[in-house]
Amino acid sequence: MRLLIKNIRTLAGILPAETLCLRGKEMASARSIDGAYLVADDGIITRFGPMDEMGEVVADEVVDAEGRVVFPAFCDSHSHIVYAGSREGEFRDKIAGMTYEEVAARGGGILNSADRLAEASEEELFEAAERRAWRMIRTGAATLEIKSGYGLTTESELKMLRVIGRLQKALPATIKATFLGAHAVGRAYKGRQSDYVDYVCNEMIPAVAEQGVAEFVDVFCDRGFFTPEETAKILECGKRYGLRPKIHANELASSGGVQVGIEYGALSVDHLEEATEQDVRDLAASNTIPTVLPGASFFSNLPFAPARMMIDAGLPVAIASDCNPGSSPSGNMKMLWSLACIKMRLSPEEALSGLTINGAAALGLSADRGAISVGRRADLVVSKPVPSLAYLPYSFGEELVEHTIIGGKIV
Amino acid sequence: MRLLIKNIRTLAGILPAETLCLRGKEMASARSIDGAYLVADDGIITRFGPMDEMGEVVADEVVDAEGRVVFPAFCDSHSHIVYAGSREGEFRDKIAGMTYEEVAARGGGILNSADRLAEASEEELFEAAERRAWRMIRTGAATLEIKSGYGLTTESELKMLRVIGRLQKALPATIKATFLGAHAVGRAYKGRQSDYVDYVCNEMIPAVAEQGVAEFVDVFCDRGFFTPEETAKILECGKRYGLRPKIHANELASSGGVQVGIEYGALSVDHLEEATEQDVRDLAASNTIPTVLPGASFFSNLPFAPARMMIDAGLPVAIASDCNPGSSPSGNMKMLWSLACIKMRLSPEEALSGLTINGAAALGLSADRGAISVGRRADLVVSKPVPSLAYLPYSFGEELVEHTIIGGKIV
Repeated sequence: MRLLIKNIRTLAGILPAETLCLRGKEMASARSIDGAYLVADDGIITRFGPMDEMGEVVADEVVDAEGRVVFPAFCDSHSHIVYAGSREGEFRDKIAGMTYEEVAARGGGILNSADRLAEASEEELFEAAERRAWRMIRTGAATLEIKSGYGLTTESELKMLRVIGRLQKALPATIKATFLGAHAVGRAYKGRQSDYVDYVCNEMIPAVAEQGVAEFVDVFCDRGFFTPEETAKILECGKRYGLRPKIHANELASSGGVQVGIEYGALSVDHLEEATEQDVRDLAASNTIPTVLPGASFFSNLPFAPARMMIDAGLPVAIASDCNPGSSPSGNMKMLWSLACIKMRLSPEEALSGLTINGAAALGLSADRGAISVGRRADLVVSKPVPSLAYLPYSFGEELVEHTIIGGKIV
Repeated sequence: MRLLIKNIRTLAGILPAETLCLRGKEMASARSIDGAYLVADDGIITRFGPMDEMGEVVADEVVDAEGRVVFPAFCDSHSHIVYAGSREGEFRDKIAGMTYEEVAARGGGILNSADRLAEASEEELFEAAERRAWRMIRTGAATLEIKSGYGLTTESELKMLRVIGRLQKALPATIKATFLGAHAVGRAYKGRQSDYVDYVCNEMIPAVAEQGVAEFVDVFCDRGFFTPEETAKILECGKRYGLRPKIHANELASSGGVQVGIEYGALSVDHLEEATEQDVRDLAASNTIPTVLPGASFFSNLPFAPARMMIDAGLPVAIASDCNPGSSPSGNMKMLWSLACIKMRLSPEEALSGLTINGAAALGLSADRGAISVGRRADLVVSKPVPSLAYLPYSFGEELVEHTIIGGKIV
């Protein structure tokens, strides 16, 4: 099965096959070719270059991309799209002036989603999440991480992870599952946080590992949620059961999450709205990827994570959606591209690296995707007609993805 | 020709037929009906109410809006969509740290668009603007104001206004034309701003009036652009020629624009990012409508206009797109709805009033549109399936307009 894309206005995101991650200045270093073609065989990129070097190519499927930009499909390394019911009621509360923590304190927030999820059938959850995932795929994502964490009981956490497992089978995108039992303290453990941590370690993690339904373990390590000590305990336990750490840190306060993440070899520490210069120095000396979530900052009126400072300090920043019904109800990665450029002052190319190769790296998948290289997966976005790559984040209110191609197939 | 829309989840934006504008607290007062129908005959709303009161209705066209919200189509009272070429190059400059004024000072900004416009044919301008207008219509707008102001010579200003005239004929939406010769000082008058003002008054305005190609006169009254005295001169002249004032004020500084607008009976003063409490008090004592442009604040990283303060002070706030290639390259009114809620802390209903009835009022059109009332135009939006009205601004990255209906017809 051969796919040919020809007459590409700009083919962007070209990297050497061996590149696994772009750090600091390198984030602006991906090459592009104006007037290009690309060939994929059986889902793998096999050739690309300037149109005048294409020669004759016989293909099963031909896309004429005249006037269009082609770039690597988005890799969204942080989402929470398995949930029951949207939370626009809390949106009203926040407009009226309540903070994230006030909404949480009065039983809204994560616990609100947990209550609704407990009542929802696995089938309902699957159907709603499948619709959301398809929307994300249609807007350019080919790789998605999805977390549990609205269960907060062993039974409901496993239900969520089974739904993610069904999504893995049903969707053309690659789906990675993360266990986030420590997203909040379940209602049955109110006032007994330490007992809840034991429950996560002694019951949930063994059950999740036995059923083989998650690859990563996550903890919401922040002020008002889990402490660095509790986080360490959970990550330690998760690692014993073969789950790789990938955590929430420093969304609400500089809380030691970055350091505990680094200490336990987290693949990524995510959020970082309150990251300090010390956090950035510690990350620079580690292999942990800082993942920023500009949709949450935008929607929840939090500070934006200092992505510019991180890149200037040489870090490999990934950008993800955090798509969830409370603090970031959008999985549109093109909108995040705009936010990263407008609000974090990343160049269009730097932001694209964060949304593709570095997002793939934050899932341990960058060897085979996230860039245009011979040998990588043909996971691609073909834009609508646009004058340039930069037009995509610039035109922030416009839907500009024409095709998402996954494994060489238009989906 | 009868249109029936039935099974509407929520019919929102219902107002008494005599309401021309919503001030302050009234902006949250439009009624809604859950489980509703609406009938339009020959483009005019003739009946609506709860489904159980619908009875038998024979119609030429029937829309089953099950699970969908229906609300008045958006009235975008401030846009600049006739232009040649996008300006994502300047977007890069701004990311690199240049201010609006620095970009303008080095010959970018409005003068950049003026250079490109001078080279473009009327046909090219028309085709590009028509595409943009259709995108705005498809995303829910049925009424659009469009300004000249990238001409800055009599010839080019008239060319722009002729293009707007062609759009009026070609599009199903209502298009209103505004003459904005005083958008910046044309290159030929560099360093001779006062001569340029004379040129606007003595040549441009008489020509525009003679050809009958504009209804409103606008001036960019702000620091670094035109002074209140120059603005007064132009508005005075425009009024003599039958052009009603509607001006740009206080985007970059509290520059006296609000007061000169009020003094000359401006229908609206637009931007207001730097509006002071005194400006708000002066507006409260006037009939001038404050129009806020959250897309410009978002994209250009300006402060958001104090719309919350204005509403709390009893003002009738309108919300418009400012769609233009430099400071606000989006005409998606649903995105502006999100920005008004998230960044200006307007409730979903207040923001909708700003985008509909008050937008219509800012064009002098609110007698026949901008709300659901018997006798008003059937200019309507039918959403995609959504759980509630508030879901629309809440889900900020999602395209949720299914149909735009203009004059009772699905377009």
